[in-house]
Amino acid sequence: MSDSLILSVDAMGGDHGPAVVIPALGFAAGRLAGQGVRFIVHGDQARIDPELAKVPALKGLAEVRHTDKFISMDEKPAQAMRRGKGSSLWNAVECVKSGEAAAAVSAGNTGAMMAISMLILRLAAEVDRPALTASWPTSRGVTTVLDVGANVSSDAEQLVEFAIMGAAFHHAIHGKDRPVVGLLNVGSEEQKGHEEVREAHAILRGTAFEFDYHGFVEGDDIPKGTVDVVVTDGFTGNVLLKTAEGVARFFGSEMRSAFTAGPLAMAGALLASRALGRMRLRMDPGAVNGAPLLGLNGVVVKSHGSADAKSFASAVKVAADLARSDFAAEIDRNVKRLSAALAESAQSGPPVESSQ
Amino acid sequence: MSDSLILSVDAMGGDHGPAVVIPALGFAAGRLAGQGVRFIVHGDQARIDPELAKVPALKGLAEVRHTDKFISMDEKPAQAMRRGKGSSLWNAVECVKSGEAAAAVSAGNTGAMMAISMLILRLAAEVDRPALTASWPTSRGVTTVLDVGANVSSDAEQLVEFAIMGAAFHHAIHGKDRPVVGLLNVGSEEQKGHEEVREAHAILRGTAFEFDYHGFVEGDDIPKGTVDVVVTDGFTGNVLLKTAEGVARFFGSEMRSAFTAGPLAMAGALLASRALGRMRLRMDPGAVNGAPLLGLNGVVVKSHGSADAKSFASAVKVAADLARSDFAAEIDRNVKRLSAALAESAQSGPPVESSQ
Repeated sequence: MSDSLILSVDAMGGDHGPAVVIPALGFAAGRLAGQGVRFIVHGDQARIDPELAKVPALKGLAEVRHTDKFISMDEKPAQAMRRGKGSSLWNAVECVKSGEAAAAVSAGNTGAMMAISMLILRLAAEVDRPALTASWPTSRGVTTVLDVGANVSSDAEQLVEFAIMGAAFHHAIHGKDRPVVGLLNVGSEEQKGHEEVREAHAILRGTAFEFDYHGFVEGDDIPKGTVDVVVTDGFTGNVLLKTAEGVARFFGSEMRSAFTAGPLAMAGALLASRALGRMRLRMDPGAVNGAPLLGLNGVVVKSHGSADAKSFASAVKVAADLARSDFAAEIDRNVKRLSAALAESAQSGPPVESSQ
Repeated sequence: MSDSLILSVDAMGGDHGPAVVIPALGFAAGRLAGQGVRFIVHGDQARIDPELAKVPALKGLAEVRHTDKFISMDEKPAQAMRRGKGSSLWNAVECVKSGEAAAAVSAGNTGAMMAISMLILRLAAEVDRPALTASWPTSRGVTTVLDVGANVSSDAEQLVEFAIMGAAFHHAIHGKDRPVVGLLNVGSEEQKGHEEVREAHAILRGTAFEFDYHGFVEGDDIPKGTVDVVVTDGFTGNVLLKTAEGVARFFGSEMRSAFTAGPLAMAGALLASRALGRMRLRMDPGAVNGAPLLGLNGVVVKSHGSADAKSFASAVKVAADLARSDFAAEIDRNVKRLSAALAESAQSGPPVESSQ
């Protein structure tokens, strides 16, 4: 049993609950075959059991822990913290705290998940703020973007922490030894941007971390895939991600109306349908589902609320990969390097000459 | 001659100079027929004259003012201010200052244009910061987004000024009497976001301006076209715009590769080509070219550097529409309402209860 990996799953989160989560665990069990993966499934037994009965691959691999308390998709974080105890989400995270499970996965609402996870697991030692990531499809692969909404503003030190956590996540999930990190700004020259990004830039330039620092990147570097990890404050990251998702949907709907514009266009769409299907798949955010809440004492992974079973299975895979990785220790080592660099510069003067 | 409109044009800006600018003036003269429009064209006479000879429509409408000094596309703002005097861009703006022309247009580099225009025209009375706009194609039409990069950070009062200037611009160009303004944030609830947006929200809610305030909007509301004007700080606006442009290009290239994936897909693309052409046109940022530098004593309009002649003509049309409008007076009236509201709240206490 020493080689087994136990994952704790909230079956009640997301738009579809057990009807998506349970088949997803079936897919995940297949993709993680040989890793001794097992699941503790939290939620309404009366809804979970019939779904389990349809997935023979899960026989003996899933233990159901019943609760009839759930967090709704529109519950406010403060409310979720006050009233969430004993809910499927709460119990899923609690299993990570107690050490029963190596990681938790939920498609529940982001704010409630962050609030409950912070309350139960607490921030990792020396980490100042948690962060949320997005896995952004690019012309070269996937770029990790953070913070996309755990914070509304960030100082220089917090931006550097995001760089550390994003790089450790990217390393664990995509296997790249020294991910390349860029800091989002309005231009690539040293003197560009506000004080926080210029100071973070100086720290990233001047400190030896276990990743490579590219320098400033601009907005269009994200879809280009110029770097592996793009760091920004949670306000900018959040509106950026939502805008890009909106632009992608706009393109999708424009394309659909272009293709129903007349019989010739419809015939064309029919002929091109396989190629268009592949294109959609390549740009489907669901294909890279699974966003960890970074900076906590334990692995909690968020799935899109609208994820289907295959997509939720991707989030489960992310949780397993993170749980198996050196991820937390890597963050710890690099945050210590940051603290040492800051302590040293506090003695020897500021790391940047004051500029504007 | 009282009905004539004189526009001052920098012929040397952009990627193509007179070869695009002069034919563009031909298109613009056609689109502005009956308005008595005439042009003062600044730049290298030896390059401008042969282009003018090819456009009979401009005969008698364009006066060339020669200079052999130009600002290059990569010249830094500070350098442009020091060395720009007598350049085609400088002279074009100078004509607005002197009253010879009603507006200036250039496809030159944004930083140099802003620096030189600020130096020559100065900020309008009571305006605290200039702003740059983007005209964003949406599923409902065009949304004006600002600031997209004139500033790297903005306080609450400056965000409200952007709302005022954006609404006056939208009114002048799109003819809508009371444009609907939204403030970009990470959520739509009152308590969301950082202090600056919450304070700006309270001022916008509590003051009677000549536009309607919708409240907070999120990133995906931009491509949806939820409001006419989206207000944000220059850092967020700049990375947002560049990211969305990058995402649009990514879609374009994915679509091209989808359509060359095989003979069936190519046949499909051929059949659908007219519909796809219309779709590209609807989403082409060039189709809504022409971004004013807002907040100055005078109208200066920026064209994309890569604009073709039809697109540069759109920027000329924007300059003419702004010059003919009540735009500057509308900004002045609303900024005065803002000052009155702020003076009143300074006497009676803060407009928002302090919250977090």
